[in-house]
Amino acid sequence: MIAEISPARTAVSLSSLLCLDDVEDAATHAMAADLRDFVAGGAGTETTLRANRTALERVRLVPRVLNDVSACSTETTVLGTSTTMPVLVAPMAYQRLAHPEGERALAAACAGAGVIYVASMLSSSTFVDITATGASTWCQLYWLRDRGQMTNLLRRAESAGCRAVVLTVDVPRMGRRLRDIRSGFTLPAGISAVNLSGDVGVHDGSDSESAFMAHTRLTFDPSLSWSDLDWLRQRTSLPIVVKGVLHPDDAQRAAELGVDALIVSNHGGRQLDGAVSSAEALPAVREVVGDRCEVLMDSGIRSGSDVVKAIALGASSVLIGRPAWWGLALAGQAGAARVLELIRQETEDAVALAGCRGIADVRSSVRALPAAESWSW
Amino acid sequence: MIAEISPARTAVSLSSLLCLDDVEDAATHAMAADLRDFVAGGAGTETTLRANRTALERVRLVPRVLNDVSACSTETTVLGTSTTMPVLVAPMAYQRLAHPEGERALAAACAGAGVIYVASMLSSSTFVDITATGASTWCQLYWLRDRGQMTNLLRRAESAGCRAVVLTVDVPRMGRRLRDIRSGFTLPAGISAVNLSGDVGVHDGSDSESAFMAHTRLTFDPSLSWSDLDWLRQRTSLPIVVKGVLHPDDAQRAAELGVDALIVSNHGGRQLDGAVSSAEALPAVREVVGDRCEVLMDSGIRSGSDVVKAIALGASSVLIGRPAWWGLALAGQAGAARVLELIRQETEDAVALAGCRGIADVRSSVRALPAAESWSW
Amino acid sequence: MIAEISPARTAVSLSSLLCLDDVEDAATHAMAADLRDFVAGGAGTETTLRANRTALERVRLVPRVLNDVSACSTETTVLGTSTTMPVLVAPMAYQRLAHPEGERALAAACAGAGVIYVASMLSSSTFVDITATGASTWCQLYWLRDRGQMTNLLRRAESAGCRAVVLTVDVPRMGRRLRDIRSGFTLPAGISAVNLSGDVGVHDGSDSESAFMAHTRLTFDPSLSWSDLDWLRQRTSLPIVVKGVLHPDDAQRAAELGVDALIVSNHGGRQLDGAVSSAEALPAVREVVGDRCEVLMDSGIRSGSDVVKAIALGASSVLIGRPAWWGLALAGQAGAARVLELIRQETEDAVALAGCRGIADVRSSVRALPAAESWSW
Amino acid sequence: MIAEISPARTAVSLSSLLCLDDVEDAATHAMAADLRDFVAGGAGTETTLRANRTALERVRLVPRVLNDVSACSTETTVLGTSTTMPVLVAPMAYQRLAHPEGERALAAACAGAGVIYVASMLSSSTFVDITATGASTWCQLYWLRDRGQMTNLLRRAESAGCRAVVLTVDVPRMGRRLRDIRSGFTLPAGISAVNLSGDVGVHDGSDSESAFMAHTRLTFDPSLSWSDLDWLRQRTSLPIVVKGVLHPDDAQRAAELGVDALIVSNHGGRQLDGAVSSAEALPAVREVVGDRCEVLMDSGIRSGSDVVKAIALGASSVLIGRPAWWGLALAGQAGAARVLELIRQETEDAVALAGCRGIADVRSSVRALPAAESWSW
Repeated sequence: MIAEISPARTAVSLSSLLCLDDVEDAATHAMAADLRDFVAGGAGTETTLRANRTALERVRLVPRVLNDVSACSTETTVLGTSTTMPVLVAPMAYQRLAHPEGERALAAACAGAGVIYVASMLSSSTFVDITATGASTWCQLYWLRDRGQMTNLLRRAESAGCRAVVLTVDVPRMGRRLRDIRSGFTLPAGISAVNLSGDVGVHDGSDSESAFMAHTRLTFDPSLSWSDLDWLRQRTSLPIVVKGVLHPDDAQRAAELGVDALIVSNHGGRQLDGAVSSAEALPAVREVVGDRCEVLMDSGIRSGSDVVKAIALGASSVLIGRPAWWGLALAGQAGAARVLELIRQETEDAVALAGCRGIADVRSSVRALPAAESWSW
Repeated sequence: MIAEISPARTAVSLSSLLCLDDVEDAATHAMAADLRDFVAGGAGTETTLRANRTALERVRLVPRVLNDVSACSTETTVLGTSTTMPVLVAPMAYQRLAHPEGERALAAACAGAGVIYVASMLSSSTFVDITATGASTWCQLYWLRDRGQMTNLLRRAESAGCRAVVLTVDVPRMGRRLRDIRSGFTLPAGISAVNLSGDVGVHDGSDSESAFMAHTRLTFDPSLSWSDLDWLRQRTSLPIVVKGVLHPDDAQRAAELGVDALIVSNHGGRQLDGAVSSAEALPAVREVVGDRCEVLMDSGIRSGSDVVKAIALGASSVLIGRPAWWGLALAGQAGAARVLELIRQETEDAVALAGCRGIADVRSSVRALPAAESWSW
Repeated sequence: MIAEISPARTAVSLSSLLCLDDVEDAATHAMAADLRDFVAGGAGTETTLRANRTALERVRLVPRVLNDVSACSTETTVLGTSTTMPVLVAPMAYQRLAHPEGERALAAACAGAGVIYVASMLSSSTFVDITATGASTWCQLYWLRDRGQMTNLLRRAESAGCRAVVLTVDVPRMGRRLRDIRSGFTLPAGISAVNLSGDVGVHDGSDSESAFMAHTRLTFDPSLSWSDLDWLRQRTSLPIVVKGVLHPDDAQRAAELGVDALIVSNHGGRQLDGAVSSAEALPAVREVVGDRCEVLMDSGIRSGSDVVKAIALGASSVLIGRPAWWGLALAGQAGAARVLELIRQETEDAVALAGCRGIADVRSSVRALPAAESWSW
Repeated sequence: MIAEISPARTAVSLSSLLCLDDVEDAATHAMAADLRDFVAGGAGTETTLRANRTALERVRLVPRVLNDVSACSTETTVLGTSTTMPVLVAPMAYQRLAHPEGERALAAACAGAGVIYVASMLSSSTFVDITATGASTWCQLYWLRDRGQMTNLLRRAESAGCRAVVLTVDVPRMGRRLRDIRSGFTLPAGISAVNLSGDVGVHDGSDSESAFMAHTRLTFDPSLSWSDLDWLRQRTSLPIVVKGVLHPDDAQRAAELGVDALIVSNHGGRQLDGAVSSAEALPAVREVVGDRCEVLMDSGIRSGSDVVKAIALGASSVLIGRPAWWGLALAGQAGAARVLELIRQETEDAVALAGCRGIADVRSSVRALPAAESWSW
């Protein structure tokens, strides 16, 4: 399948892609239908998938003027790491589905762009190969039934040089993504979760369960709870990031437990259909957390304006998932680099046009009118 | 007509239907146009019919995380009866229109799925045949001009083993469902309300009145009022459920009178066109009622996410009508079972993905942002 | 032109028209394009024309149950006159454009239906011919430059038996209705404002002004102000109704001056484009006026549900304009009668399905959730 | 290019254009695709471009009645200059792109219509030629890296007779207008910023930057800040108008610094994509500024109703940009005059139909319900 799409990939001039929507359009044509659906799809009737975009579009920025922006910069730090912009690449499984070079290509693009790459536990390249690109790398973990496997993963991630652990907490089971069941999508030979020892693989779906859902059911541990954060803390000295928080009460508790960062996320609309959009959930989370930890956000970011909206609503930084995948699918490292170049330029433009010299200015002086009336708790 | 649609019914593989929208699409093709309209239609310009869906889509769930959901269950009780999920099948008249086995097939599917079947007073099968399927059955009543008929119905329902009486209070007359007048739809020979002795039948419509409207006008008693609840209470020891309440003042009064449960409902958009959606009405009803009685809800539920939204907005359980009909029309008991299987699985997924171990967790810890700004009373 | 459309008119079976939308569709085909546009059009970009419908559709009724509605009635009184429903026919000019029998046919339909007919000052039939139908008739007046003409009109209206005077206050000039300018629409020979002596006629439009706008400019007096209400009061003992009020401060002042009724109206979207919808303006007007005078409402009413919504929002009664015209255009008196029959039946249905015995019940017990958040003054 | 579109221009009868939408339609056909996109386009995904219109359409006017409007006038003053209406023509660069007579034609139309013409710093005609038309002219300035150039411009503007200086503060860099990058649009030979000495010109774009963006980057000074207002104040005695303010805190500071007027503007959606619409930002700006300075507004005004909405929301006057361009492109001075004639007539109609004798009445007595719930600061 990968070989087949190569011609399409080479037919597009990257410099002609002027925004992430352009990249999406081009990538959509470059991917086979089942892969395209695997990437684009959400859970259930995809209500939340749509809501993520609608909510961000409804946010309105109130920019500032008459501030010297000649030295405008998008640089910031994320958990102490300097980055060129408040944008990370979100963890995504099996990136060799998108391109033969997979994770290595996307991580290399991140290294080149000076942003953090979050390696999925389900990467199809080894953590060592990923960090060898020079990318500042975080390692994402799902909670596995096999606790020894978890320990192994932590060791591998640490020895490969990963700088933080991201624990995804919104997948006690996989959301029903109907597109994958309908297409019968599964992993082709040669692509697997190479960082897992003896993984059961993603091969057998059924009428009611995609191969990915089956894999999740067999290997993920749905008993993950607050007390398990202790277990994790005892086994690694890396900063711990909790991904998938939407409810302020959970954010409050995580902050009290000393988590280093939260990611406000609905998993790109791929888990609970009907869940609130990230952009709507973000302000209440930031309000309860205050400055006790960083608050990142993902699900729906498609432009530099969206980045600035998220910052103004309370985010420390954001993550992009699908856009990076589109770039990777289109032209490997170069395609991903184009995506990062576009969103960095757009973010810089939005920061400057909001009358800010940098990200800190956005936080302190730009107002974002929220997508919906605020909720009191 | 039933014979004609059989081929279409057999052409669909039930396991390929992955959500209730799929079932609707398939059933729409399997039913004759007039029957399809009879099922799908609402009153007047169908404003409320559409509002039921729009309101539920606008509700946003704020899920919880880091709660052990390994033993996630959708089980609950409804008026003391254990059920596998907080979903009942709503009363619907003349189910033999959908399938030769009619009520028996749908009740059998409920028995198999472990959910409560609410038998319409206008069932085309006898109460005894229905309860013989093993389904936990409630009996729904309209208020008839012939009070002796009411007494008979109560006796038949009780002796057949029905466990509760549902009094529908939103049909003092039938809403003008224009589709039925336009199609001239009426009951075919062999289908009638077999639990009514000497029923006038549903045969004669006119230019301004469908046959169903005429039947309602002739047989239903529009004088039904609060004092009649006493009459009913004196004639049965079964729990009494009042179906069709939207106004908090009515809910308050019903609770004070000791009703066992309320059903917040606009009759699926088939009675007062312009009535508020059930999802919008629900929170205010629950607020005034508190825990004095159970509050059920119907009108617009089309997925497990909708079930969880309703629970989070204050419902004890919900009822589904049209989706069960679609399954029945498509493949009798097996089709109805598929619908119940889908919504149960979706509900379990939504409960787990909302970070809950069960329905009680949803009630206590998940927040649902309402469809519209709340109304104060 | 009228002759040409007669065949089309006879081709439609009135009994097949089941709601006002049906009547609109049929009438749209029966009228020549320029007349159709004259009736359907609004001012400017027709923002307010659309808003009238949108606002009413957004209003949601919260009905009551368990109230004996066996004797449900839509009867009410309007300024002391008993009517069969809280619906009047709004003043509309030159009704012989719609049908050769014009005002006489529409008034006769009102007489038959037991509702009030409001005769336009610009009627193409004499007031005497109109009241001869037996209809309870009000006489609508624009404020004319020729004050003697006003006195004559009052005398004619009084001697013909009109029971109230409606002073339209929202036409100091005519709104720019672009459709009429584009079509060059004007009055055909034989149709004129027969109650005006020596009227200049509606014949000469231009590139920037329809013939109707020119007529208004030449004959209407834009100096109409509060003090003129005194002039009118001194010249007639009939009740005075002020039509075209949207602002609560104006409603307050009118009530203080002892006006008998107000009509909340934006002239069917034909005057100030961008004006608030009547349904949004109504609650604030009723709130300041209280019970000091009746508050009627028009602009956008298209069903019995709309009637009940308006009542629940504070209206005493409503007026319908275009729907009556459609009926008249389609089949003269019989067509208009069909429209009145439909809306009366729909209103009765809505009253009963809202759990009310009559209009007073709607006012006291049904809640209408407003189209927009309320405005404080 | 101009020659080619001349035939199209002559084919349209100006008197057949009855509203600004008509003018837009006609102009759209008369301009080459790249020029049409240059005019119509906004930054990024054009969210703000669309929001400007949506917000104005959502504003609802609550008009007054029974006020003598026989002497209704749209006259007002802007910074002490009498104008025939509260509408100015906004600064737009290179108007000879639209028509060979360019700025001279548009200024002449303004002179004829009695409204203020704001000459862009990037005019393709000299300030002297512009003021020679007799138009009351303001001179707009961007902040240039070459401060001597700024001094020269001020001198030229003053000696040409310009009456105010408009400092545009929302272009520290140009927004990414993708349409221009895609079309490769640039200035044709013979069109340049003739008021700038030794301008680098608008000739060289690239894959990621339009020629206009490059010009801005090379010549505009992004260090513009509050202190520079002092520099400007010291070099001219003309009134100073700050254009591009959306945030109340900036408005507050500008008012404190004694600026003569503010223009609430998002540059027609061409700078920060995602910025709040002008109509939403206006009320909060007026509230903090009070009467300390005039508050003008642009971005999205397309009718006289929009003018009245803006006034009622707090604007002193408004500016129109694209509509004037459309008129110019269509038929030079005559086309622009038609646009000004239309909006003046529409404004007068809206003032009169809102029950007002003039602009002051609108400010004091008409209420505009805002596009969105108000924001507190």
